[in-house]
Amino acid sequence: MTAHTWLPEGASAVACLTFDVDAETGILSMDAAAADHAMAISHQQFGPEIGVPRILDILRNLRVRATFFFPGWVAERRPALVGRIAEEGHEIGHHSYSHVPASSMTPEQEERDFARALDVFGTIGVPIHGHRAGLWEASWSTPSIVAAHGLAYDSSLMGRDAPYRVATPRGSIVELPPHWSLDDWEQYAFLPFPEIGQHIKNPADVLSMWTAEVDAMRRFGGLFMLTNHPFLTGRPARAVALEQLIGHIQDAGDVPILTGHELATHLSGLTLPVHAHVRPELEDGLFPGRYSPTSQRSMEPATSAGA
Amino acid sequence: MTAHTWLPEGASAVACLTFDVDAETGILSMDAAAADHAMAISHQQFGPEIGVPRILDILRNLRVRATFFFPGWVAERRPALVGRIAEEGHEIGHHSYSHVPASSMTPEQEERDFARALDVFGTIGVPIHGHRAGLWEASWSTPSIVAAHGLAYDSSLMGRDAPYRVATPRGSIVELPPHWSLDDWEQYAFLPFPEIGQHIKNPADVLSMWTAEVDAMRRFGGLFMLTNHPFLTGRPARAVALEQLIGHIQDAGDVPILTGHELATHLSGLTLPVHAHVRPELEDGLFPGRYSPTSQRSMEPATSAGA
Amino acid sequence: MTAHTWLPEGASAVACLTFDVDAETGILSMDAAAADHAMAISHQQFGPEIGVPRILDILRNLRVRATFFFPGWVAERRPALVGRIAEEGHEIGHHSYSHVPASSMTPEQEERDFARALDVFGTIGVPIHGHRAGLWEASWSTPSIVAAHGLAYDSSLMGRDAPYRVATPRGSIVELPPHWSLDDWEQYAFLPFPEIGQHIKNPADVLSMWTAEVDAMRRFGGLFMLTNHPFLTGRPARAVALEQLIGHIQDAGDVPILTGHELATHLSGLTLPVHAHVRPELEDGLFPGRYSPTSQRSMEPATSAGA
Amino acid sequence: MTAHTWLPEGASAVACLTFDVDAETGILSMDAAAADHAMAISHQQFGPEIGVPRILDILRNLRVRATFFFPGWVAERRPALVGRIAEEGHEIGHHSYSHVPASSMTPEQEERDFARALDVFGTIGVPIHGHRAGLWEASWSTPSIVAAHGLAYDSSLMGRDAPYRVATPRGSIVELPPHWSLDDWEQYAFLPFPEIGQHIKNPADVLSMWTAEVDAMRRFGGLFMLTNHPFLTGRPARAVALEQLIGHIQDAGDVPILTGHELATHLSGLTLPVHAHVRPELEDGLFPGRYSPTSQRSMEPATSAGA
Repeated sequence: MTAHTWLPEGASAVACLTFDVDAETGILSMDAAAADHAMAISHQQFGPEIGVPRILDILRNLRVRATFFFPGWVAERRPALVGRIAEEGHEIGHHSYSHVPASSMTPEQEERDFARALDVFGTIGVPIHGHRAGLWEASWSTPSIVAAHGLAYDSSLMGRDAPYRVATPRGSIVELPPHWSLDDWEQYAFLPFPEIGQHIKNPADVLSMWTAEVDAMRRFGGLFMLTNHPFLTGRPARAVALEQLIGHIQDAGDVPILTGHELATHLSGLTLPVHAHVRPELEDGLFPGRYSPTSQRSMEPATSAGA
Repeated sequence: MTAHTWLPEGASAVACLTFDVDAETGILSMDAAAADHAMAISHQQFGPEIGVPRILDILRNLRVRATFFFPGWVAERRPALVGRIAEEGHEIGHHSYSHVPASSMTPEQEERDFARALDVFGTIGVPIHGHRAGLWEASWSTPSIVAAHGLAYDSSLMGRDAPYRVATPRGSIVELPPHWSLDDWEQYAFLPFPEIGQHIKNPADVLSMWTAEVDAMRRFGGLFMLTNHPFLTGRPARAVALEQLIGHIQDAGDVPILTGHELATHLSGLTLPVHAHVRPELEDGLFPGRYSPTSQRSMEPATSAGA
Repeated sequence: MTAHTWLPEGASAVACLTFDVDAETGILSMDAAAADHAMAISHQQFGPEIGVPRILDILRNLRVRATFFFPGWVAERRPALVGRIAEEGHEIGHHSYSHVPASSMTPEQEERDFARALDVFGTIGVPIHGHRAGLWEASWSTPSIVAAHGLAYDSSLMGRDAPYRVATPRGSIVELPPHWSLDDWEQYAFLPFPEIGQHIKNPADVLSMWTAEVDAMRRFGGLFMLTNHPFLTGRPARAVALEQLIGHIQDAGDVPILTGHELATHLSGLTLPVHAHVRPELEDGLFPGRYSPTSQRSMEPATSAGA
Repeated sequence: MTAHTWLPEGASAVACLTFDVDAETGILSMDAAAADHAMAISHQQFGPEIGVPRILDILRNLRVRATFFFPGWVAERRPALVGRIAEEGHEIGHHSYSHVPASSMTPEQEERDFARALDVFGTIGVPIHGHRAGLWEASWSTPSIVAAHGLAYDSSLMGRDAPYRVATPRGSIVELPPHWSLDDWEQYAFLPFPEIGQHIKNPADVLSMWTAEVDAMRRFGGLFMLTNHPFLTGRPARAVALEQLIGHIQDAGDVPILTGHELATHLSGLTLPVHAHVRPELEDGLFPGRYSPTSQRSMEPATSAGA
């Protein structure tokens, strides 16, 4: 068993509580036609309107700080909500502008989308230290874009379950890895069009699974990176389960709850494993499908029917 | 924590028990070819023939009133069943004529479908106070159509988990929001063609999830809007779980069970949050897919092969 | 609560244990290309080779009789297995010849397929009293074909959860209705190609769900029609759960376990609800999709690439 | 109940713990375009980088030996990892070169792919005794290729749940059958592109299901062939559940844990059931779909967009 030198003194693991406030972009980024579906849009608006205030209440009562990742599109339309969250001591994170997956853009498109969101956050006046790709669908350019714009960390890649460093041509960043198994989307997302999933798990079962994961993280010295969505976890029984999960983490006594920024700051002077993070080169004809070694991306940039 | 001024005196939450009697339209509205599938049609007919009488027995024994939403097509073919339900003191609700999603119709088609169902209910002689869109797939026109025809409430949108008001050009209505997590379709619906789902959950687990939701609703002052389908929940072990769920609500002591109409009447003199409910305007080319700002709807009206 | 006049004296419900020995036809009837997939074929052959003998042992130990539905194609290739099952006192049922859904055939094709299977059973020398459509996908012609060939019952339709009678132009038959929730396919079937499902439930949970269903059937006077597949339930922990389920039924004391034939014989002199079982007539253009009132079937008959 | 003559003396069942180290090939073999998806690639790289060392620790602590199946492509890029696993006393197995399903190749392509992987293992210097097809998608040629190259066993087919022998034109081999219900893929695999599954089960439930399977295997004298993937089961709570599962097997006292090679060696002198393992001949036009009796395979060999 290796020593977990990245851990704060006395800690067996670290927990980050993160909330992706996707709102309408959670479905518009899959298919713009979702805008015609009134119920689906209302389903997404529940997040910022009801889910976020309810989660803020819970965090305040438990005296913990969290990171709220906003697509720029959502922050632009709800600057007061962004401001309120920041005033309560939480971190605001960069979650792209449009929530359209970076893996479907050219590097130039991705960097424009990235900068556009930064402009929004700048106008609102909140500092940005970390980034998470829409749908976690980072491209091979994402880390270098994050580094070039001076952010401290990214939270999209899954190469480890503890923090690591990604070296890029434009500087290195800290990676705070999330994982599908610690995301409420795979537990609770249900919507037929756009189909975002068919998941309606019992919150009691989710709580049981995630408390066991906290305990296992303590054994292996891992980062419990929780990703929740206010439009999902903001619903009553799920919010109660979230509260109980946080209580479990606090009761453990050796799992500090940090924002992404707090953790990245702690790590800034430490030696971490370094990943080069480069696209695998593929032998021609070995694997089926659409990969071409000479193209940068496999998908065309998104365009609307009206374009 | 805000005061929940919409709640009846002494109540911590309110429960509405609603049953969507889709019968054959539950699958014909997905694909008319379902009419060729004898087993699938029999599967749907179980609802009005066995499921509804069984549920009525349970409601009578527990002395609670519920709301039964009927597509006009179903009511037209089973007027005696509609009459019997009304005579037992339950509310009959408007569930479109054909169960075809409003989001796939033009506003004119939707209003014709809406009026046609009203005619059916008028002929049968049952009063109509509330509406629910087929598949909850309300269009941006749905609330104004509901308001224009003088109904008190709609139950299709999910912007909150407590009642709110929707302002429309043709008047305002009360919204009594449902949610995917309180619908038996996502727990029990299984049929390969048309594929309505692949869900066969253990009724004991569903009961556990929903009683926890009742309890969480009491904490947050929410509306426990249960949506069940007699062709699904009318099956034996599921009907028993429904009975136990109602018993749990009654035992709570502070969660009155009201019909949609009773709740809308209670709310009529109160101040509720108001939602404007307008379609988001999208920047050209930002999101992928079929959205066009100049079209009202993204899908063509449905036509049969024989048309 | 109505009296359940169909029940044998002293019985609160009746259980039928049925096993569909689909073997290779379970996947070939979905796509003949499955024949190229060696693992998938071996996965299906487990049913007759290991699953059936294991289930026979369990039935013998518990002294219960069951009904084994065979596609004619499977019986033709394994006459000794059919004979052994019959010799142990179980019933052999008719499960089409090819397991291709009747709803995809013309009435003439369906009747030829039906007769061909009868010929196989005649050659083997086992009497046939009941029928179940492949995938339960009965056509509107199925009941009349079953009646015309002198069988006593069908077990494909789901209009009730107790036996009923289907009147056809060629005579009436008893329907012993199955249901998706009492089928092991929806609990255990997993195969990517052809994709037969993605279900791997814990047998302990399945046992819990089905014992609760037995108890609920006792309350409502229902028919507990269990459908299992030896290639699925023949696996070790699932076979043990089946054994425990049968033990639970026996312990109830008021739920006799009958073969389909025994139950149909008991019902032959009784008055049952009668269903006319006719295809719904659809208004032109009301529902989307492929339905045409002038066509008998919506799908072309199946043909292989080599035809 | 037949005597289980294949079992080692004193054993009621046998357990094999196998780990398929698919790494990047787990998704590249589905679609080469996966190479453009940085997060997805990092998700797969977790397997060899974090998952394997963690699993090795657990195996060492519990003093058990396992079999690690490597695609040649993965072994070629990580020879040190292969060497370390072998040095710790575990078996290295052959898992094709590219992980592309054998059922999508011609026999010539399959044999070239097979030999290429053997070359890789030869260069690294690890002996190879057993084979498992990518995705278990063996072709009808697979067993004869395995036999021709002198391997002792295959572990891809599912005709039994105890070892059996497959006779081929090029010699006979032992089959050590896996099954979907004992694979972590169906419990834990979640990735939207390429879509590898939507499964995130609670490890506690998986543990409960698999310990019951161990117990049932003891009753029926079966082979508990566990297939796990380090990129899935290497995650913290899942690794802990694996450890508890192994503990359960050890506590049973009559279930020896053997590598595939150890088991095949034990079986080499025994009489086992023999399967001929030939493709079923299909009557023209009986089943729908793409099968053609004159073609060897139904799918074209895979080619990349750049070819």
